Amino acid sequence: METGDEAASVGSVIDAIVAANRAYAQGFPGPLPTAPAHRLAVVACMDSRIDLFASLGLNLGQAHMIRNAGGVVTDDVIRSLTISQRELGTREIALIHHTDCGLLLFTDDSFSEQLAQEVGMKPTWPIEAFTDPYVSVQRSITRVRRNDFIPHTDVVRGFVFNVATGLLDEVDPASS
Amino acid sequence: METGDEAASVGSVIDAIVAANRAYAQGFPGPLPTAPAHRLAVVACMDSRIDLFASLGLNLGQAHMIRNAGGVVTDDVIRSLTISQRELGTREIALIHHTDCGLLLFTDDSFSEQLAQEVGMKPTWPIEAFTDPYVSVQRSITRVRRNDFIPHTDVVRGFVFNVATGLLDEVDPASS
Repeated sequence: METGDEAASVGSVIDAIVAANRAYAQGFPGPLPTAPAHRLAVVACMDSRIDLFASLGLNLGQAHMIRNAGGVVTDDVIRSLTISQRELGTREIALIHHTDCGLLLFTDDSFSEQLAQEVGMKPTWPIEAFTDPYVSVQRSITRVRRNDFIPHTDVVRGFVFNVATGLLDEVDPASS
Repeated sequence: METGDEAASVGSVIDAIVAANRAYAQGFPGPLPTAPAHRLAVVACMDSRIDLFASLGLNLGQAHMIRNAGGVVTDDVIRSLTISQRELGTREIALIHHTDCGLLLFTDDSFSEQLAQEVGMKPTWPIEAFTDPYVSVQRSITRVRRNDFIPHTDVVRGFVFNVATGLLDEVDPASS
């Protein structure tokens, strides 16, 4: 698909972020501890409209930020959460899916078949599409709670971020 | 491990981010397109000291942000990049590891054995520890370039973020 952004000529975008980073570093506060001060890990969708620091009121050094397509708890998220809790001291987990997610554009079957037709083989990894972000958050909470490698699951809370309003809506885990 | 943060009593942290989000939403700019305007996907470590929006000069709606322990290109990152490029139009990829990473604290063998002893079984997922972030970035670039499902690999650039200075240092892919 095409977008109308005039700054997106190939190669220019990453040059622009390197230049922006030079300016950013002028005001960088310097080293902080490796372990997150708020002992929090956030799992969220990769969506470009979610700025986790700003939208959650977080500062540098406070929380791990794990993001993938959908914000779904996959094995790689389990890996990250296991390292986060066991090696870097986090205790609470916030899961964030959102409205208008790209994962709503297809099904596991349709995307897998599309890849098979265009690439010549199906992927060996699960697609993780979903139809309702609230249900998907509940199922991700369940994946965390039932995992053997994550030691701390007392505080695992799920939210849907509304990309029209910027508001978090908490998901009831009881109905999962 | 313990941190000295007084705000980290269990349960309070997520309540605090929910409250902060209410204030954030007051100034939220409203809906933007699902496809990232800069056609860029960033893959970075989950580390709490890396604010991708601020440190790369990005605004809402411009780039996908994929993050895990280490910023390593795992199968889940391949999944996210495949969806990012094929369904949401991104074309360039920036990979960001960093200095003082938690993944330097152990080896694949030592962490897997620690889990086996404490949980009773080894994980079925790879740990993805590394010893040199520059080498790890090069190997992640290679994983992207050699993958069959990611259609656009002309612009895949790697960086090490220095958590003491806030500066990105570009990694030479030629030596990978």
